[in-house]
Amino acid sequence: MIIFLGEKINVGTISLFESEVAHCAKILRKQVGDTIVVHDGSGSVYTCTITSISKKQVLAQINSSETHPRLSTIHLGISLTKNIDRIEWLVSKVTEIGVTHLTFIKTQRSERSKCRMDRIEKIMQSAVKQSLKHWFVEITPTIVPFAEIVKSTASTKYIASYAPEHANLMDAVPSSASILMLIGPEGDFTQEEVNGASQHGFESVNLGSQRLRTETAGLYASTLLRARQDQAK
Amino acid sequence: MIIFLGEKINVGTISLFESEVAHCAKILRKQVGDTIVVHDGSGSVYTCTITSISKKQVLAQINSSETHPRLSTIHLGISLTKNIDRIEWLVSKVTEIGVTHLTFIKTQRSERSKCRMDRIEKIMQSAVKQSLKHWFVEITPTIVPFAEIVKSTASTKYIASYAPEHANLMDAVPSSASILMLIGPEGDFTQEEVNGASQHGFESVNLGSQRLRTETAGLYASTLLRARQDQAK
Repeated sequence: MIIFLGEKINVGTISLFESEVAHCAKILRKQVGDTIVVHDGSGSVYTCTITSISKKQVLAQINSSETHPRLSTIHLGISLTKNIDRIEWLVSKVTEIGVTHLTFIKTQRSERSKCRMDRIEKIMQSAVKQSLKHWFVEITPTIVPFAEIVKSTASTKYIASYAPEHANLMDAVPSSASILMLIGPEGDFTQEEVNGASQHGFESVNLGSQRLRTETAGLYASTLLRARQDQAK
Repeated sequence: MIIFLGEKINVGTISLFESEVAHCAKILRKQVGDTIVVHDGSGSVYTCTITSISKKQVLAQINSSETHPRLSTIHLGISLTKNIDRIEWLVSKVTEIGVTHLTFIKTQRSERSKCRMDRIEKIMQSAVKQSLKHWFVEITPTIVPFAEIVKSTASTKYIASYAPEHANLMDAVPSSASILMLIGPEGDFTQEEVNGASQHGFESVNLGSQRLRTETAGLYASTLLRARQDQAK
């Protein structure tokens, strides 16, 4: 089943996202009167009838709707990688895995401090459609300095560390409250950053015995955290 | 540090893999007498002195060597995906995560039954170098029919299932013995395949609450299995 992305523009009416219009109008050749399923990335799924369709806009009338609760909060804060393809890949995969919030962070050793957030947003939306999620991943629209993200008020805060003396993330306690997980750049966080995080209540955790690239570490941690949340249900 | 791949051709002598020669000779302009570090993908790392270098071959004399044990066996058997890029991506990532054996399987609903194994092998070797592993992932050189792989003698055998009534892989018992994990195609294994696996001693496990694409499911399962092995140490 094809699900389109759109938003409610007033009571009873949905407008498809601009990026969805061509697919609906030109490729699938939908017409006025056709039934489509639309979701808004915020838990609502609408069954609608198309009332107006052009090359620029598709409007539809809502016949019925259902809502889905958001998953428990897993917020991934991760350094950008030099090669942006690897981050784009990560965005798609953490969307599938069930990360709810994503922030790119600027650390002392990060090799990149910019990326095209419009592109990131599109990749996320595409993964949401593909994997039939009901909620978008909430992506922070700017790159956040490390010194800012450590001030997060999340109830459980982890910072990834290579050091084997720290607890393995597998042994961290599952929690239904919000979790923030920070992943550093290739070359890791500096000791100054780790100390700063510790002062703000972060627990250092290691991600197992294998050396992982930044984006793999991000997916590894997201997998364990979502799996533990599922297990704790 | 750059580590080259090569093999021992007789006592005391290493020959670099053909694929490594250009990098060593042309790009890094190594010369006779230079010291290089070479590993053989089977746990041995050699510190060597180059004795002969040309466009076609690099030979080196072993000065010292160390050996690293193999990780506990995690064997991933996974259906090929229609789009081969996704499988190639998976190969790189499971190498990082620490899968030890990889087999592509042909199931009833698999959309592809061929792939270029030489390319897969190169991607794996590149990931091994990148992530400083000491062992190659052992990749079965042919696509194995489902009816064959279920006869595996691995001590613990899991088959992934969407069905929520099955145990979550997170709750599966860690084990230091060999584990075989089967991941199906988009559209899942058929009931006939699941039954067949069950008769051969496979346990059905689910991979959490989120809908995952084939390659993401493969990485998800590999992550949990390796993390549990690390935890059990």
